[in-house]
Amino acid sequence: MLGFFTKKWNPKGKHVYITGGSSGLGLSLAHILALKGAHISIVARNQKKLEEALKSIEKFRVSSSQTFHAFSHDLDSGTAASEALEVACKAHGGEAPDAVFACAGSAKPMFFVEMQESDLSDGMVNGYWIQAWTAWAAARKMAREHKQGAKIVLMSSTLGYMSFLGWGSYSPAKHALRLADTLHSELMLYGIDVHIYFPATMYTPGFDQENQTKPEIVRRIESTDEGQTPDQAAQALYNGVVDGHAHITGDLLTALFSASTRGAVRRNNLFLDGLYDFIAYIGTPIWRSSVDRQVVAHRQEHHQYLSDKGFFS
Amino acid sequence: MLGFFTKKWNPKGKHVYITGGSSGLGLSLAHILALKGAHISIVARNQKKLEEALKSIEKFRVSSSQTFHAFSHDLDSGTAASEALEVACKAHGGEAPDAVFACAGSAKPMFFVEMQESDLSDGMVNGYWIQAWTAWAAARKMAREHKQGAKIVLMSSTLGYMSFLGWGSYSPAKHALRLADTLHSELMLYGIDVHIYFPATMYTPGFDQENQTKPEIVRRIESTDEGQTPDQAAQALYNGVVDGHAHITGDLLTALFSASTRGAVRRNNLFLDGLYDFIAYIGTPIWRSSVDRQVVAHRQEHHQYLSDKGFFS
Repeated sequence: MLGFFTKKWNPKGKHVYITGGSSGLGLSLAHILALKGAHISIVARNQKKLEEALKSIEKFRVSSSQTFHAFSHDLDSGTAASEALEVACKAHGGEAPDAVFACAGSAKPMFFVEMQESDLSDGMVNGYWIQAWTAWAAARKMAREHKQGAKIVLMSSTLGYMSFLGWGSYSPAKHALRLADTLHSELMLYGIDVHIYFPATMYTPGFDQENQTKPEIVRRIESTDEGQTPDQAAQALYNGVVDGHAHITGDLLTALFSASTRGAVRRNNLFLDGLYDFIAYIGTPIWRSSVDRQVVAHRQEHHQYLSDKGFFS
Repeated sequence: MLGFFTKKWNPKGKHVYITGGSSGLGLSLAHILALKGAHISIVARNQKKLEEALKSIEKFRVSSSQTFHAFSHDLDSGTAASEALEVACKAHGGEAPDAVFACAGSAKPMFFVEMQESDLSDGMVNGYWIQAWTAWAAARKMAREHKQGAKIVLMSSTLGYMSFLGWGSYSPAKHALRLADTLHSELMLYGIDVHIYFPATMYTPGFDQENQTKPEIVRRIESTDEGQTPDQAAQALYNGVVDGHAHITGDLLTALFSASTRGAVRRNNLFLDGLYDFIAYIGTPIWRSSVDRQVVAHRQEHHQYLSDKGFFS
């Protein structure tokens, strides 16, 4: 009955639509999918980066019949996301893509009390809506066209499973992307499968941008993290989608947070998930205490910092 | 060091600010707090309902020194939320409240593919921003005034721990409210404590409103739920805040979803949480399979429904 969800996914000859496909995770994913024989459409804003991305995707071509296209388009409303999708589908007879990967997004870590209203609302736009509108546009088009077996894939973050100071504009958006959990249930009505990926720290252009506003204490807490290259992260994403995992993780730390946070989502592997759950049950309180101690120890220094910036006056 | 978080909270003589305080959970909470000797400010939009609410809170007064005020104000931007807060603080020497409970919010369950753009964005406003802006206004004011021991309390839902079809505009907003997890960590810098409550189905005016758009299949899946009265839900919320729980639940089902979804949040009770975690590990996949089966069994009927509404033409 649910058999079509358990088959391994094969992107060969499929049309795959990737937002944020001109750099970072999206571009690495496009490389992998090109190598597997997919037709690829990438969408981003910057025309020059799109052209360079197309050239680099071209190197992974395995068949002359593959088509690669790039589109410069906004994605920050339902209308914009629908238009971008329609434009990309033209080369495929107007038909909905076989898979949509919403990789666009960015983060701006800051202290909550220093955020302006626009920091908070931009955080939701760049962390959530930029993907949710594409999911909305894709779900409607796929459902209307009876596109059974199609896929929608959203990109959350380890910070979609847990949070700590500095991420007040980003972590809520990444938690909100558990929209994927609703859609995983609801799009069963149309035979459309939904996945969500929770990548750890990735060394991308976006990561360098984050670091420009990231408070020192946040950096310190994260200093024990092992980051991944976009290629490593994209490989884990690809494997998870091929295997049909509802929630996909690509590193041990995130897998542990996932085990204690995935909740009522379909399990990937009953044994491994149980083991991770047990380790997380012991481990997460230790992690939490350590972070809490670092935050409390930072109180005086932080007070001085705010004082110097005139926050109290 | 973290000792001030573990003391029992006593609202007597404290100024408590409650958004959505004119009905449902917010009003029931105001009754409890009045009975405990708190000064209370409620904020909502409808002036008539505010006046009626004030009269009903008056009945729970235990001391002639208690002050009860009601304010009609918008809360849907940071500026509006800050203004509302300042107005309510005037009667208290302009000082930040001792506790802020963000109870305002509403839901509109629908099929995702039938949602218009405004359904999705209104869902985020009414489920998330209406509370997040109050949290932002309160955190800034409390931090600026060195309001150690103050509290900010957000209201999520069982649907902030899990989701299923129909809740595409609401569940993301309730997940996003795990903003509370970020703030629980960050506001330790100021000695401000943050809680989040995950109430189950409540028989409130909001619930009746939800039912007007709720698809039949969603109603069917929820039919096994035992709902609570706002008074029962408010009592569980109050108890959780008094006990200093980071995540607060008021019924067994939500406690089980919490055990499998709370993740890296501070535990309430190491033994009970472990037991719930174990039960949830066995129980949630069974629950999930049952919901999935109901959704898949509904496919044909749903297809007919969409067809009749002209969705495919």
